[in-house]
Formats: sequence, structure tokens, C-alpha cells
Amino acid sequence: MALIVQKYGGSSVADAEKIKNVAQRIAQAKDKGDQVVVVVSAMGDTTDELIKLAYQVSKQPDNRELDVLLSTGEIVSSTLLTMALEAMGYEAISLSGAQAGIRTDAVYSQARIVEVDPERIIRELDKGNIVIVAGFQGVTEEMNITTLGRGGSDTTAVALAASLGAEICQIYTDVEGVYTADPRLVPEAQRLSEIGYEEMMELASYGARVMHPRAVELGELFNIPILVASSFTQSSGTLIYGGASMEVRNKVRGIAHDLNVAKIAVVGVPDRPGIAAAIFESLAKAGISVDTIVQNAGLGKITDLTFTVARSQLSKAIRLVRPIAESMGAKKCVSDSKLGTVSLIGPGMQNTPGYAARMFRVLSEKDINIQLITTSEIRITCIISGDRVKDAVRALHQAFELERGE
Amino acid sequence: MALIVQKYGGSSVADAEKIKNVAQRIAQAKDKGDQVVVVVSAMGDTTDELIKLAYQVSKQPDNRELDVLLSTGEIVSSTLLTMALEAMGYEAISLSGAQAGIRTDAVYSQARIVEVDPERIIRELDKGNIVIVAGFQGVTEEMNITTLGRGGSDTTAVALAASLGAEICQIYTDVEGVYTADPRLVPEAQRLSEIGYEEMMELASYGARVMHPRAVELGELFNIPILVASSFTQSSGTLIYGGASMEVRNKVRGIAHDLNVAKIAVVGVPDRPGIAAAIFESLAKAGISVDTIVQNAGLGKITDLTFTVARSQLSKAIRLVRPIAESMGAKKCVSDSKLGTVSLIGPGMQNTPGYAARMFRVLSEKDINIQLITTSEIRITCIISGDRVKDAVRALHQAFELERGE
Repeated sequence: MALIVQKYGGSSVADAEKIKNVAQRIAQAKDKGDQVVVVVSAMGDTTDELIKLAYQVSKQPDNRELDVLLSTGEIVSSTLLTMALEAMGYEAISLSGAQAGIRTDAVYSQARIVEVDPERIIRELDKGNIVIVAGFQGVTEEMNITTLGRGGSDTTAVALAASLGAEICQIYTDVEGVYTADPRLVPEAQRLSEIGYEEMMELASYGARVMHPRAVELGELFNIPILVASSFTQSSGTLIYGGASMEVRNKVRGIAHDLNVAKIAVVGVPDRPGIAAAIFESLAKAGISVDTIVQNAGLGKITDLTFTVARSQLSKAIRLVRPIAESMGAKKCVSDSKLGTVSLIGPGMQNTPGYAARMFRVLSEKDINIQLITTSEIRITCIISGDRVKDAVRALHQAFELERGE
Repeated sequence: MALIVQKYGGSSVADAEKIKNVAQRIAQAKDKGDQVVVVVSAMGDTTDELIKLAYQVSKQPDNRELDVLLSTGEIVSSTLLTMALEAMGYEAISLSGAQAGIRTDAVYSQARIVEVDPERIIRELDKGNIVIVAGFQGVTEEMNITTLGRGGSDTTAVALAASLGAEICQIYTDVEGVYTADPRLVPEAQRLSEIGYEEMMELASYGARVMHPRAVELGELFNIPILVASSFTQSSGTLIYGGASMEVRNKVRGIAHDLNVAKIAVVGVPDRPGIAAAIFESLAKAGISVDTIVQNAGLGKITDLTFTVARSQLSKAIRLVRPIAESMGAKKCVSDSKLGTVSLIGPGMQNTPGYAARMFRVLSEKDINIQLITTSEIRITCIISGDRVKDAVRALHQAFELERGE
């Protein structure tokens, strides 16, 4: 008898019919004789609707209150899923994040899990119950409710799998798995049957929305195999696990892209210590994440500082950066909101110069100008004009023969 | 500096605008320098909508899960009200029933409060916070969520007022207070400026929907003055407290009525022990409340057993009672679903025979047939045809000169 953790996303439980469908799938797993713990997201657009309500009563809702409000979405879906299972004759019980022992820090709206106390879950499993846990939420030492921010329910699922010693964590969503590129851009994109944690993290960080990098990271840390598959079909999905990298060494695994990219360039600033610190501290305080940072060594004592932020945060970032740049004597502060990234991901990428060269040639043949380049061990990312991203992804997918499959 | 507890019902917080209006009223109380604890119900029809969802996934939703589901309604309204207060510059915090220390037994869907641990509320008040508590809910020793059943939020408010030693518990609702009769039936009905706990309990038990008798009972037990007033006007409402009875001794205070009444009569049953027990045990097991019970001493060894139930439970009750009646040799088992009650309520009623006689005369003059009569210390109730209830209430209101006010 194994213990498995399943997670179902919001689109999989969007209405009563879909909830019953998910209950059927859970029942199948239980019928195999396994112990089953299920993590569930809020139904469909519930979270957005609750946020809308909050902004109807307050221009700037308090984060503590917003977390309590949003946590109700997952509680609603967890009870309905439990009722649907009971209606089918299965023993089940719903638990809130707090009841399930998800303890977090007190950073409201993006809390981190500090520890999981699985005592209650184990007790319910031992009684024969299927345990349905409200995802995306936890509780502080002071018994205040928190939410885990983006990718929260995935993170709940992997954390529970780790603390329960589960055999596998199955993430059921509205896509069939992880693809060599976004199938909406590249119809020939192939589903990967498996991928390593590191590559998955890079894919997720650089635009593949199928799973949040944070949950993948947790999976790697505790060595929990994660299956990503569709909740609507019986397709076998993609297994994310530790073994994959070794078997498929030195091969491009996939192409990620991101259209939510904007660039700020502080041009002609005196090259002395403290400039970058002043700018990035100010952005960090305002909660603005900076992705790529490039400082061009200029002529003499003048330098250019370029970095990217999410498109939605550009205007806020500019308002913060401009006065700092001016006070430091920068020539000008320019921005471009219409950028995108395209990333080539695979093990050993950085140590194999051929890949980078081939990537740049493919883009140049398509007359796509590269604005910035960043790399990691297993990734090469080019920042290009947003309206060329689609062409770039298609050309690279073809050039690296990803339509051939594994 | 006094401590007051306020409670706002679902119609008072039905949308964002109404929530902001309630926030204004709470702010006024806070501005007077008092410590304020607020209990809030779920927004408008939220509870009904959640119940509908539950029945979409299950024909018979489990009570434990239903309680968790329904408890989210009050959590949503409590966070929104807190946000609205914060937007006005007030310090406030929302607490769930569990966080507010409402401990209950484990009778899901109609849990009883076992104790209140007000430690967290006191801590938040000491920080200067207005504390907004989600009504209608509590938590068991096992940390399972419960709901308190009908009148739940009123009960939460009075229980908190008692445990915090509040000066007063203010129940804000969509009516202006307690009236001598339902103003929709009797336009001349007068608002009572005050009423005793006992009379209020009888009024509430026999049809006045303004407050649940259970919360009034708790108020009497801990001697908490309860003000019932409108959340939409500045009208002064009705004060329910211990002193009232003495001052207005021997006076009809109000007329309650109830149209949700059905009667079952088991006719011609052998008069031997055990018959009533068999019938009422069976009804109790099915969760059917029986109100009035009358056993008519018949001729010889034959008796008639008559009792009333809520109209909505009649068909279920009949299905249970008929086979028992038949097995005991009853002649027949008849029912009438179209009954109503009219009740005269005031202190010392039973000890002043004149009231009963006058009541019966008034009804007879209107040609209204009395089917059953029940009395208490402070109440006389007649069960009559449902379609004559309106006439009966009006005639009695006039005969006892209630339009004159106090």
C-alpha cells in the first residue's frame, strides 16, 4: 500500500460537474488500494472574484485580511470535493491548511512553509479516509491564516508529499504535461515523458506556466517524483524527477518563452560604487522583482546599467529609478515595455558552446535582434522584441529538432 | 471606557456599499471611546448559495463538511468589513470563530457553545483593534469547524458579550426593533422600547423572527442587556433586559404568530403506555421537532394523540408516524398542513384568567375556530386555521389596545 498525493487545479474543479469528475479520478486511485491525500485549488475564478470584492470595500486591502478572505476559496472546493466522494460511498474528510499542519512564516500573501505537522492527516488516513486538503494556505505560530502566493497549491502538495513520505506527487491540471515548447505557439511541440528537476525549474522560471518553480525546487530538495498530467484525459503526463538529467545528458529539452518582460536602461551614469545598490534596494523595498541585470563596461568612467522587470511593474519601477538615476548624474533613463524572452533549456548547455552559437545564428537568420543574453548551467536566454518571440520559438524548435520527440 | 458587542445580520452586509455603511456605524461607536467587538453574518444569500452548491455535488451532504463550507460565508464578510474599517483609517482585525475562542460540542449543523476563551480577542482589543468576529461558527476540541444552527450569529454575539463582560450586546438587523405584532400584518403595531428576557423568548419562540430565543436565553443567563435595532436607521430599537418585566407587570406585551404549523392527529388509538414514547422517539431520531402535544382523554380505553410540527417536516413526519400508529391499532392518522398559531405574550398571563377568556372571546367573535390551546406562565397560544391568522392578530392587537404604545 503506497501513499500518493494528488493536486487538482482551479480549472479542474470549476463547477459541480468537474468536481464530480475529479472525485471519480480520486476514487480510481483509492480503489487501487493506495492511501490518497488530495490538495485542491479554489474553483475557477473564485480567487479573482474575492479579490474584486476586497477592492470594492478598500483601495488597498490589508494583506492579513486578504489572506483570510482568499483562503476561503480553497476551503469551499475542498468541502465540495469531499461531499462528492462521500456521495460515491467513499470515506473522506476535508482539512484546511491549518488543520493539515501547514505552518508558515507571517509574510502575508507570500508566506513560506516553515514546517508541516502531518499528525492529523496520518490519523485520518489511518481511519481509512481520503484526505482533501485546502491548498495555497497555512497558519502562523500565532494562528493567523496565510496564503502561499503564486504556485501555492502546487507547493502545498509537494510539501505534504515530502512530510508524509509519499511515493509520488501527482499534479493534475488543464494541460497534458510539459512540452518542448508552448503548443499554442508550436503545434509540433512534443510532450516530454520525463524531465529533471533543474531543467523543469529553468523552464518554469523562464515562462513555462505548467508548474511553479518553487514547488519543483521543493520536490528536488526532498527528492519527491512529481507527475504533471491532465485532469481531463488519461494521458500519461510528464514525470519530473532526479534521474532524468543523467539519461538525456547534453540535449536541448525544451524552449521556454515569456512575453511579460520590460527593460529599463540607466544610460551614461558615472561608474562608481553604490549606484546599483541604491537602485536595486529601492526596487526591492517596493516589492519589484528584477530578473536580468547587465552592466555594460563603458568608456572611461561612464557606464550603462540595464535590467528587466515584469511588464506590469514597469511604470512603478520607472517612477522609483528615475529620481535616483538623476541624482547620480545619469544622462538618461529609458525603458522598453514590449520585450520578451526565449530560453533554450537542457543539461550541460553552458559547457557546450555549440548550443549558444547555434541559437544566435538561428535568431540572426530570422533577422531577430538580441538585446541581452543571460545564461545558467542549463539555460541560454535571449531578450528580444516581444513581437518576434513567436517566430523565435518556432525557429529554434525546428533547428534543434524537438518535434522528433525524445 | 466600556466594551460593547455589536452584531450585524446578513442583509446589513449584503454588498460592498452596505458593508461600508456598517463600517461607518462601527466607527461611530469606536469614536465614542468604547472597545468594540463586532459579530457578522454571511453576506445576503451566501449561505443559501453555498447550500445549493453542496446539493449539486451530493444528494445528502455530510454535516461536518457542510459546516466547514458554510463557515466560509461569515469569514468572507468579516474580512471585508475589516478591510472597510481599515480603509477608513481604523485599526481592525478579523477573527474566525475558532480564533475568537468559540468552543463548541461536535453536533455539526447545530452545535452548542461549550465555552468561550476570549484571550485572543482581549489581546487584540488591548492593541487598540476593533475586533470583527465571524458569527455562526465555532470549533471542537478536535479542531473541527462547527456551525451553531439557526440564530447562530446572535448566539455568538451574546456569548462573546457574556465572556468579555460587555456592557451591552447590540443586535443590528433589518427591522427597527421588537413590535407589539408583525407590522406587515398590523400597520398600527408599536415598537416596544423595552421587554423582559422571558417575554422576548416567548415572542421569539412563537413566531417573532427578529431574534432567536436561544440567544435571548443566553442573555438572560448571563444578564447581558440586548439592544435590537435597525442597521439602516438611527431609531433607538428595543432593549431586552432583566428589569423590564417588573415595571410593566400584568400587561399584554405583544402578539406573535406563526404560519409554519402543521398538525398530525393519531385518532382512536388504544390508551396504553408506550404509544407516545414510540412515536416521539421515532420523530426525535429523524431530527423532527414537535411543538405542541395534546392527548385527549377519550371514552373508555381509546384516546386521540395530536401534535404539531413545522409545515416543511409534515410529510416526513407522516411517513414515520403512520406505520407506528397502524401497528398500535389506531383507527386513523390524519394531518392538516394549513394551520397557524397566534400567541398573546405578557408577564403574569397565566395567573390572570381574564386574559385567556378575553382572547377566546375575541377569536369567537371573529368566527375563528380554536383547534388547540397551550399556555405558559406568560403566554397563551391558540392553534387556528392558517388563513385566519392575519385576522386573529389584528383583532387581538385592537382588543388589547396595543396600538396605544407603552
